[in-house]
Amino acid sequence: MDFVNTSEKDGIVTLSLNRGKVNPLNGGVVEEILSCLNALEGDSAVKAVILTGQGKFFSFGFDVPELLTYSREAFSDFLTKFTNLYSYMFLYPKPIIAALNGHTIAGGCMLALACDRRIMISGKSKISLNEVDLGVPVFTGITEILRFCVGSRNATEILYSGTLYSPEQAYSLGLVDEVVSTDDLTGEANKAASDLANKPWPAFNGIKSLLRKPILQDIEQREKASIMKFVDIWYSDSTREILKNVKIKS
Amino acid sequence: MDFVNTSEKDGIVTLSLNRGKVNPLNGGVVEEILSCLNALEGDSAVKAVILTGQGKFFSFGFDVPELLTYSREAFSDFLTKFTNLYSYMFLYPKPIIAALNGHTIAGGCMLALACDRRIMISGKSKISLNEVDLGVPVFTGITEILRFCVGSRNATEILYSGTLYSPEQAYSLGLVDEVVSTDDLTGEANKAASDLANKPWPAFNGIKSLLRKPILQDIEQREKASIMKFVDIWYSDSTREILKNVKIKS
Amino acid sequence: MDFVNTSEKDGIVTLSLNRGKVNPLNGGVVEEILSCLNALEGDSAVKAVILTGQGKFFSFGFDVPELLTYSREAFSDFLTKFTNLYSYMFLYPKPIIAALNGHTIAGGCMLALACDRRIMISGKSKISLNEVDLGVPVFTGITEILRFCVGSRNATEILYSGTLYSPEQAYSLGLVDEVVSTDDLTGEANKAASDLANKPWPAFNGIKSLLRKPILQDIEQREKASIMKFVDIWYSDSTREILKNVKIKS
Repeated sequence: MDFVNTSEKDGIVTLSLNRGKVNPLNGGVVEEILSCLNALEGDSAVKAVILTGQGKFFSFGFDVPELLTYSREAFSDFLTKFTNLYSYMFLYPKPIIAALNGHTIAGGCMLALACDRRIMISGKSKISLNEVDLGVPVFTGITEILRFCVGSRNATEILYSGTLYSPEQAYSLGLVDEVVSTDDLTGEANKAASDLANKPWPAFNGIKSLLRKPILQDIEQREKASIMKFVDIWYSDSTREILKNVKIKS
Repeated sequence: MDFVNTSEKDGIVTLSLNRGKVNPLNGGVVEEILSCLNALEGDSAVKAVILTGQGKFFSFGFDVPELLTYSREAFSDFLTKFTNLYSYMFLYPKPIIAALNGHTIAGGCMLALACDRRIMISGKSKISLNEVDLGVPVFTGITEILRFCVGSRNATEILYSGTLYSPEQAYSLGLVDEVVSTDDLTGEANKAASDLANKPWPAFNGIKSLLRKPILQDIEQREKASIMKFVDIWYSDSTREILKNVKIKS
Repeated sequence: MDFVNTSEKDGIVTLSLNRGKVNPLNGGVVEEILSCLNALEGDSAVKAVILTGQGKFFSFGFDVPELLTYSREAFSDFLTKFTNLYSYMFLYPKPIIAALNGHTIAGGCMLALACDRRIMISGKSKISLNEVDLGVPVFTGITEILRFCVGSRNATEILYSGTLYSPEQAYSLGLVDEVVSTDDLTGEANKAASDLANKPWPAFNGIKSLLRKPILQDIEQREKASIMKFVDIWYSDSTREILKNVKIKS
């Protein structure tokens, strides 16, 4: 693994994004997360997973400069993989906790939303689905996942405004479930993971399916359509003008 | 236009209901609103729409005394037009802001709920879906739109009780998004409209579709059935007894 | 009726569970509640129903020790009857109020959630969907009903944690709609019942259908699947180990 560090303690595995300064998402990162989660799903010694990041970002979201160099086809493939990843995470049979160690933006926020619980450090870090300000929409699946997490009214507020929320604002909107000091993040994430890991697994897993499967049911066609629309807008001149200005610290 | 005044500033068009003292809705008003919105949808100079009213009412809701004179067929046609109007508004491709200048009752509240944002003046004005107290139900589409705005629990509270809510109560239930002084209404509505109008349009429009299209998807048959049931109850003796007592100031 | 006491006042009928000390649910109790509600549905003198319990429990939930003696087939039949009961209650054409006189646990909480309004006494009584801690999931229908009452986010919190909530916590989560002193329970439940009973019935009933029918629409196959999964987990060794320790005061 180049971009994901792995550590384990008492059956709880922590995956930590580690790509440059801001953990931007490209095809490689998405494949590595998927590959790790696949392996952990099949490993009976693993009871729960924590997803976090190195540095001051959980994730900046899409690696826009790199993705702008993709062909239309490669970019569509990337989006298919990415949307499959958040759908897979949302229905993941074991508990997954997002330990938000810093800024959690756009695609990064989408991965966090697919987890069972989001714990964010207090302070200056922001969390946002700011796609609207980048000139792009989002996808069907993540819209339904966001609605699941925060309700339709808050989902509208979050997506229409593109606001960069403080952890406290995010808590009151339901974007995160808990705000803790930086020092407490690892401990609280492990506690949340083991709380769920200690539940009888067939019960936890059955309940998670009952709550979550209907949310993504029968959306396959709509998800494909939303990806195609996203691609069209991504390649439009007006959006390209905005995206060209996105800089990533490396 | 007899019942809708139109004004424009910086690409934001304000439609103001202007029918008698309380802006009650009949076939003519519904057709005029639809006709205005249709024209504005096709006008590329128009970036956003504000819907408001003249006088102390945003709208009283249905013009009950007039509608009681309609034939059953004409009344069914009116309901079809009205439900089509709120569905069209809910999915309107440009931002629409409801500037609630006064009482916002029943059918008037339904039109407000279909907008992207509701801003209401503080003070003595009330907002209500009081159909239950008039002896009639509502419709499938507006039930789903209400659920979208306030969630199922608050929707139940609002529709079961028929309460006339103060702006502050309405804010805490999610019926309105902002409460401002009368003097600030025009300014705040214009600010909300231009905030959304200034977002890259394909992104805003794409996000609005993702959030809202699923809400009204596949309800055509149920909407027709809900209209037929509404008509049956409207023409029942017990409901007619209640409706006969509804007075409208003109 | 062996397990349900009935009383009537001004067209409001109170059904009071009366089985041992904790009103645990078995096939007999479920059939009696269903039979009472069926009879009251057809009785035009009955305007509303209150469901409450005798003693310190509204209901303990399933009578686990007794149900453990059922054959797999008899247990599946019981679950089908039970899930049919809460679905029938959720769509019941007349108002039903849950007057929660004490602990309201698991299956007991499910019946309460299917009512139009839940009023609970303050004090030491708890309300909970603690299935996860008993090693079992829940069912599709009640998951959707819970989501209807409290939203997906709170539904997750409630079902993942299995917490025994105080009435005040339950109120803030939306599990109950009102918390009153023990002395006020009967009065408040009667007031809530007569408030709804006094609404024009076709309007109330029409609105209730619009709000609630879509929640349980097209879930028949999923409900059957969720019952079969519940049965499989119920009969698994690990869950049986937990259930064997459940004691019921009689």
